[in-house]
Amino acid sequence: MEKVNLAETFARVREHWSPKVVGRLDDYEIKLAKLMGEFVWHTHEEADELFLVVRGRLTIRLRAREVALEAGEFFVVPRGVEHQPVAPQECEVVLIERKGVVNTGDVVDERTVAAPEHI
Amino acid sequence: MEKVNLAETFARVREHWSPKVVGRLDDYEIKLAKLMGEFVWHTHEEADELFLVVRGRLTIRLRAREVALEAGEFFVVPRGVEHQPVAPQECEVVLIERKGVVNTGDVVDERTVAAPEHI
Repeated sequence: MEKVNLAETFARVREHWSPKVVGRLDDYEIKLAKLMGEFVWHTHEEADELFLVVRGRLTIRLRAREVALEAGEFFVVPRGVEHQPVAPQECEVVLIERKGVVNTGDVVDERTVAAPEHI
Repeated sequence: MEKVNLAETFARVREHWSPKVVGRLDDYEIKLAKLMGEFVWHTHEEADELFLVVRGRLTIRLRAREVALEAGEFFVVPRGVEHQPVAPQECEVVLIERKGVVNTGDVVDERTVAAPEHI
């Protein structure tokens, strides 16, 4: 039950594509992630996923189009919609989704984080 | 299913203490609010409430202490905890809470917004 300063907390995140839990809202988790490069195409069948860009730029590729996000912009990927986050340079993103939602959705690969660390 | 630019959307908010719905995440709503002055003390018995300050400063008074938030900081008021948001100058805040949570919680006064506008 403490406030979270986003910039200070992002400074403690070292890895890319490894969301860290920094807060809870009912059954939802607020996570911080540093992203760089192309992530895997994946789907969360039963959960919407919010991406809020805090620093840098993030493109969320959908099969039919792309959503280009800059700092201060958010997008909610609806449940069941296949997507691929892509960041040409490092960006910092706040993710909000129901606890238990796994970063790679229906796909398992070397970047799957089943139990994200709390920082 | 469009992205939201926070600064552009805040520019369309005219009133204080009147949250506007700008997005959905499962059964949750993402709302933008401009706050200035002292709000009413109130409690959400069954819902946590996230405050993310985007511009300006917001103090959230709890009965035992205060949480002073600057831009880039968030705090989750746990369900059942009485609180009073206070902003000496205008501030811009993203609120996230389950759909149906009313801004004044267990209190009804002239600032109660039972059905917030979508913008």
